[in-house]
Amino acid sequence: MRDVVIAGIGMTPVGEHWEISLRSLAYRAIRAARQDAGGLQPQALYVGNFLAIDSSRQANLACLIADNAGLGGIEAMTVEAADASGAAAFHVGYLAVASGLVDVVLVVGVEKYTDALGPEQESAVAQAMDYDYEVMQGLTLAAQAALVMQRYLYEYRPPREAFAAFPMLAHANAVTNPYAMYRRAVSREAYERAEMIADPLRLFDMAPYADGAAAVVLTTPERARDVTHPLVAVRGSIGAIDTLALHDRPDPLAFEAAYHSVQRACEMAGIRPGEVDLFELDDAFSIYAVLSLEAAGFAERGQGWRLAEQDALGLRGRLPILTMGGSKARGNPLGATGVYQIVEAALQLRGEAGANQVPNARRALVQNLAGPASSAFTHVLERYSG
Amino acid sequence: MRDVVIAGIGMTPVGEHWEISLRSLAYRAIRAARQDAGGLQPQALYVGNFLAIDSSRQANLACLIADNAGLGGIEAMTVEAADASGAAAFHVGYLAVASGLVDVVLVVGVEKYTDALGPEQESAVAQAMDYDYEVMQGLTLAAQAALVMQRYLYEYRPPREAFAAFPMLAHANAVTNPYAMYRRAVSREAYERAEMIADPLRLFDMAPYADGAAAVVLTTPERARDVTHPLVAVRGSIGAIDTLALHDRPDPLAFEAAYHSVQRACEMAGIRPGEVDLFELDDAFSIYAVLSLEAAGFAERGQGWRLAEQDALGLRGRLPILTMGGSKARGNPLGATGVYQIVEAALQLRGEAGANQVPNARRALVQNLAGPASSAFTHVLERYSG
Repeated sequence: MRDVVIAGIGMTPVGEHWEISLRSLAYRAIRAARQDAGGLQPQALYVGNFLAIDSSRQANLACLIADNAGLGGIEAMTVEAADASGAAAFHVGYLAVASGLVDVVLVVGVEKYTDALGPEQESAVAQAMDYDYEVMQGLTLAAQAALVMQRYLYEYRPPREAFAAFPMLAHANAVTNPYAMYRRAVSREAYERAEMIADPLRLFDMAPYADGAAAVVLTTPERARDVTHPLVAVRGSIGAIDTLALHDRPDPLAFEAAYHSVQRACEMAGIRPGEVDLFELDDAFSIYAVLSLEAAGFAERGQGWRLAEQDALGLRGRLPILTMGGSKARGNPLGATGVYQIVEAALQLRGEAGANQVPNARRALVQNLAGPASSAFTHVLERYSG
Repeated sequence: MRDVVIAGIGMTPVGEHWEISLRSLAYRAIRAARQDAGGLQPQALYVGNFLAIDSSRQANLACLIADNAGLGGIEAMTVEAADASGAAAFHVGYLAVASGLVDVVLVVGVEKYTDALGPEQESAVAQAMDYDYEVMQGLTLAAQAALVMQRYLYEYRPPREAFAAFPMLAHANAVTNPYAMYRRAVSREAYERAEMIADPLRLFDMAPYADGAAAVVLTTPERARDVTHPLVAVRGSIGAIDTLALHDRPDPLAFEAAYHSVQRACEMAGIRPGEVDLFELDDAFSIYAVLSLEAAGFAERGQGWRLAEQDALGLRGRLPILTMGGSKARGNPLGATGVYQIVEAALQLRGEAGANQVPNARRALVQNLAGPASSAFTHVLERYSG
């Protein structure tokens, strides 16, 4: 496989983009990424998106976005794995360059959710679950996360308040992220006062769904030699699945897809999971952040919540997570989230994360989940040094 | 890039599958393809699908299908490019093996359309067009094809009846295809008597949307050495886009995406387009078959329809097309069609096409279109000879 580097990154603020169409939202991220990548001309576009068919009645979105970005004639397709679509699209972009098919690829994750879906919002995102066996029974993603959280509390008996540390960390980091949806800190009191969504899951245990677009330009180190900022190498890139339905798992607290994809991505990169400077995990729900830490091997089963107590997860801790605010505070633009995570990790590895900079960040683990880790796509990114 | 071969193929009959769920339909094709491929264990699954979100309220379909097929832990994702989704998914499968990411890949194209969509059928497939600028004005895919056909009649003045040759050929070939939806010949009289759908497009100018699933196992020649039937090599694999909206094209009769993808696929394969023994083109509408022949360079602009008159396109002609019945008579299972085309071409190249066998078929060009060639994915397949 050829070496692949990230030569350009771009993103829009995450939020409610009522005033801008799906194609224009994608274009803003593409324009920023292409400017960042200098004169590299993309030969293919891979779009990560989850809900355009519901929100915008639009299929073949990749064709529309490429056409609208003035990229006529190139190869384009949409890649979907529910809320892991962004990382899945990045993975296909990686394969296109690594294989030698093309030299320059554009990946964009885009989602229009807030204004477009109206009362259909909950049932639209529920499609990430098994329709016949879960959704038909009335299960929602939040209710499912609450079941998992309840089971965790029962099995391992952590204090209920232990989960507060994750949204508090995310919000603290988002204060200085200009692209974040909620740039304000959240106190433990606010967390505990917040309304119950599905017992034991409270408002701040759930990342808010939002609109946004993020893009990256991928190429070979040779083709990127005129790029003036640091490059970020993609050292590992792989996905794995678990059962789609939660009830089919022998152990609902073992995020097996997350485990397998971390193991394989690190194997590709020739490292152990511990040999990274930050971990951009998927905090769609606070309980999923805890289970992701455990699945990646950073804590024993049932002990992931203690990492927050030990101050390990802050920007200057031994394993920074959610460094730009995570899905909780940056916002969760679903099919775009995986690309946001990669753009944020790239900022860290380029040393351009400003007030959010993790000191001496050289290598990052980045993971995007669909639902309760039904799919997990994991990437190992590294500052490129020739 | 590593050499990639098709080691196994499988498909279900095309038709109205009211009695079987989306996941089970996919499973039938997967089981057949895996049996055909011997003991090869897939490490990744790429699903081509267009309408599961509409028809089955199911996202992350690839996870569901892999899980249901007993393939827990593997990488899986869905690939979408409207009615070119099947070929797009095959292309990603090709990249996964060619790049060296994994050695054995499963690709499945699957669509449930007839029973699941009810009155929403027309608006669901219309999502292949630009929603904001085409669908909102009331355009449907059939009306769009009629506009293109009308323009062709105006520009080049072929006899209106010239188009009859394409559905007649498709139906004649489908008679001996046990997987075809309509296994009966159609006479010129029946064609001319058929009801008008959108002037000048009559019933038999349009392929019927249907349900079905087709699957292939891709691997390296080394890993396929114990397979007892002939192997089929993938020599070229690439996609290209045109504008999504028809009205944005300077020349609506130039299928530029089809042209570009044929040129690039043949360049990868080191051949000229003329150096193939058959051309599995996309006959979603009879006019699109004509324009595909012209875009690939098999006829001058405005002259594609003459190839049928010259008897060039039959099983013993110099450029056989629609050899198993095409979308017109095999049926058009939308997101699965591209994989059906590849399975059918593989049967030809393996010499297993029975009564439909093209004599001495060694190399095939296979092309799948989204809408009016908004996207085109083209493959060059060749009987593998070590």
